[in-house]
Amino acid sequence: MLIVMFYIAITAEAMTAALAAGRRNMDWFGVCLIACVTALGGGTLRDIMLDHYPLFWVRNPYVLLLVCGAALLTIPLARLVDRLKWPFLLLDALGLTVFTVIGCNIGIEAGVHPIIVIVAGMVTGTAGGIFRDVLCNDIPLIFQGELYATVSMVAGVIYFLGISAGLPADLMAIPAMAIGFALRVTAIALKWEMPKFVFDRNMRK
Amino acid sequence: MLIVMFYIAITAEAMTAALAAGRRNMDWFGVCLIACVTALGGGTLRDIMLDHYPLFWVRNPYVLLLVCGAALLTIPLARLVDRLKWPFLLLDALGLTVFTVIGCNIGIEAGVHPIIVIVAGMVTGTAGGIFRDVLCNDIPLIFQGELYATVSMVAGVIYFLGISAGLPADLMAIPAMAIGFALRVTAIALKWEMPKFVFDRNMRK
Amino acid sequence: MLIVMFYIAITAEAMTAALAAGRRNMDWFGVCLIACVTALGGGTLRDIMLDHYPLFWVRNPYVLLLVCGAALLTIPLARLVDRLKWPFLLLDALGLTVFTVIGCNIGIEAGVHPIIVIVAGMVTGTAGGIFRDVLCNDIPLIFQGELYATVSMVAGVIYFLGISAGLPADLMAIPAMAIGFALRVTAIALKWEMPKFVFDRNMRK
Repeated sequence: MLIVMFYIAITAEAMTAALAAGRRNMDWFGVCLIACVTALGGGTLRDIMLDHYPLFWVRNPYVLLLVCGAALLTIPLARLVDRLKWPFLLLDALGLTVFTVIGCNIGIEAGVHPIIVIVAGMVTGTAGGIFRDVLCNDIPLIFQGELYATVSMVAGVIYFLGISAGLPADLMAIPAMAIGFALRVTAIALKWEMPKFVFDRNMRK
Repeated sequence: MLIVMFYIAITAEAMTAALAAGRRNMDWFGVCLIACVTALGGGTLRDIMLDHYPLFWVRNPYVLLLVCGAALLTIPLARLVDRLKWPFLLLDALGLTVFTVIGCNIGIEAGVHPIIVIVAGMVTGTAGGIFRDVLCNDIPLIFQGELYATVSMVAGVIYFLGISAGLPADLMAIPAMAIGFALRVTAIALKWEMPKFVFDRNMRK
Repeated sequence: MLIVMFYIAITAEAMTAALAAGRRNMDWFGVCLIACVTALGGGTLRDIMLDHYPLFWVRNPYVLLLVCGAALLTIPLARLVDRLKWPFLLLDALGLTVFTVIGCNIGIEAGVHPIIVIVAGMVTGTAGGIFRDVLCNDIPLIFQGELYATVSMVAGVIYFLGISAGLPADLMAIPAMAIGFALRVTAIALKWEMPKFVFDRNMRK
């Protein structure tokens, strides 16, 4: 089940990333690359940080074809995809929690410290979007107040606590993802935001 | 022969990267770093992705001296280098195909899936320029329509198909590089461009 | 002693990075992430380049808590931290030399070529600030003429020459850091700058 959701999430991430590339007037290669970096960048960074080789897409390269295919398919369907804003926000929230749980799993298998397990989940869930924004020459969106990394952390903590308590991983994935998903959707609906640190050096002058 | 062309290509990449740094008024250290990242960044990313250690410039550190020397030498010669636009475009096209063939070779040696072999070639050929543009705070040039990554893919596919057909690697490098080189030069001369995905969300409002 | 100075330097780096994030109006998560990337990014890149696993903060995850704690503590204390400009410049100079010596040490332990030992020190000392500026969407400050990477190189060379001459590492760390620190502080005080490479292609047209 996690694997099916993983492929759905990766496809959705690729399509929204393709739209971001289209807003920057990138060519088809740029569209594919932004899609790959966004959909696969988080997992790649996690694997490199944990020395977890071969990288997941080196082991299963068809995921690259899936991502590039979804990205290129987005080009003729751009208006439709853009209009389906809510479905894609839901798919993105799903992806965030699926990526987080998968990242935590790999951390647990690697036998790292609980803090690193949570970090592995957060990196998997959020780093792709940061890479996308750096390549598109934006300040990463995730730093602008959206409740995104926090959702990943909450889902990761719930998942890890359950596993530590001896519950089976398959079972724990469900509440971790459900709570993370609900938190993310509520945050979007109610416009919850992280507090910001606004520091203007010139204010005092 | 491939090794000689590799050193020529790295030197040329370092010199054009130094010009890019000069346009941003960077200091001498910045010039060296941009040159290293541009000339060596693609191969480094490939080695990290394939867990291919030690990195090629850790094994042969004199390549760092070559790149920094070429970059610093560009400073007094800037006007000359800039005027030699066509020779440097040709050297850059050469570099693209040399890097691609070397990257594919390392992928083949690592025994990865054919898709990853092609990706290893493309990463080696193109990632350095992307890093350069990110550090110079530009949207990467390679996403703006130039036929660059495509050339790398074509050269990689030709090379890999030949090797798979049992032809010796030394032999196959020649047509792969020649076709890639001819394609790139033709694309520049005829201003061939990748189609772009232009998506303006506000158009419909 | 080196370890105590390492923790002091990491804390200071985290606090100045938090101010940089605040100037960009980032949220609390962004503040923590910028602080982690700035304080730990150089060491992480060095470890990945040298295949030196597990990464230092994966082995000792409490350093992540220290960095995030220092970054969040900076939010209520922002005006105070900003006013303490000189103490923080001194701490930053200390950090640069401490990071450099630690990086060289890891290079020496890994048995790499002397050039790579110096590069490992420079990457440890300077890459974090480059990552911070890329994420904040600036052209990295370090390329703008500050005598920063040069200081790291000088400290690294002194340290490595001493070790190579058979002097004990603990002993050599002191003059390497002292000279690097003095050089950096002098450079700030006297506004020494690296020469810049200013190349304006349009000047000739």
